[in-house]
Amino acid sequence: MNREYPSAALERAVNEFASLPGIGRKTALRLVLHLLARPDREVAEFGHVLETLKQDIRYCRVCHNISDTDVCGICSNPRRDSSVVCVVENVQDVMAVESTMQFKGLYHVLGGVISPMNGIGPSDLQIAGLVERVEAGGVKEVILALSPTMEGDTTNFFISRKLAHTGVRISVIAKGVAVGNNLEYADEVSLGRSIIDRVEYK
Amino acid sequence: MNREYPSAALERAVNEFASLPGIGRKTALRLVLHLLARPDREVAEFGHVLETLKQDIRYCRVCHNISDTDVCGICSNPRRDSSVVCVVENVQDVMAVESTMQFKGLYHVLGGVISPMNGIGPSDLQIAGLVERVEAGGVKEVILALSPTMEGDTTNFFISRKLAHTGVRISVIAKGVAVGNNLEYADEVSLGRSIIDRVEYK
Repeated sequence: MNREYPSAALERAVNEFASLPGIGRKTALRLVLHLLARPDREVAEFGHVLETLKQDIRYCRVCHNISDTDVCGICSNPRRDSSVVCVVENVQDVMAVESTMQFKGLYHVLGGVISPMNGIGPSDLQIAGLVERVEAGGVKEVILALSPTMEGDTTNFFISRKLAHTGVRISVIAKGVAVGNNLEYADEVSLGRSIIDRVEYK
Repeated sequence: MNREYPSAALERAVNEFASLPGIGRKTALRLVLHLLARPDREVAEFGHVLETLKQDIRYCRVCHNISDTDVCGICSNPRRDSSVVCVVENVQDVMAVESTMQFKGLYHVLGGVISPMNGIGPSDLQIAGLVERVEAGGVKEVILALSPTMEGDTTNFFISRKLAHTGVRISVIAKGVAVGNNLEYADEVSLGRSIIDRVEYK
């Protein structure tokens, strides 16, 4: 036996799982063997869900968030404040902001940040659509909620320039020390930023 | 929005991945979003492989290892020594022993170990088949290569009793200190066992 796996079907399934980020070949094998111990129907259903995933998933025409409908549940919710648009990098970030329960406006999912290193330029992102949304009127504030990284900052700068002519208010999420963490564990950049961006004590 | 996910299709896929051992809902979401960024064809292929997994995978009629054929590549290999049978718990263990390159005999995959706590009794394992293989003749030695745990020891004992009448030689893999590890890190049970089971220095 020169082959690593005793079966080609097993190897195919291991290869598929190992193609996922953070899953090595040993973990992939463990997952496949776990599936083999499960009822046929369950495993076939798992396969079917993946097989139709890309055709089942749609993106909101307005905010580009993942959606089952042409316009997503957030954009079409009349109780949300359509005058505030929160710009985020991806779907996880929408879910992260939603889970804070602190935001009742709408979103705009860019699909990434400008990253010349990874070959991602402004035209690869949903920036033109954001400008159109603001130009169409009704938006009073755009909150930039991108990651506090070089790429995030670059993208913030690019978007603010593209929106400058609309006169919309542009804000950016606060950087500072993480809530609940001991101050001595905060990195100096975040701590420094928290001093520069200090707010009045109420 | 009361729902955790913005799309039912997304949620279905996340649920499937999160049903796998060691994969939480956050990781599952990350995996699904990774798949969404991949070409349609690749994702559909992944789904298809899983959908047909349980019907594609077969088990060797002789040793119960996973196989593409009725009798697996190891059992049907004339260059392997069919007089020695190594009893292992599962498919991973066959692969682990194979990767040592120290064993040229055949295997017998039990499909688990006796574990009253988990409701696994002797009849749930391929023990009767092992006894039949030995009774059929040609097997001179059975190597018990189960995990050095309470369950493994119980299973070893049960199998040795079931094989006693055949007169076959029964051996068990050596327990002791792990090769390459500093002795001070060895647990006392393994170290104690390595002294009891010491072998002549050559």
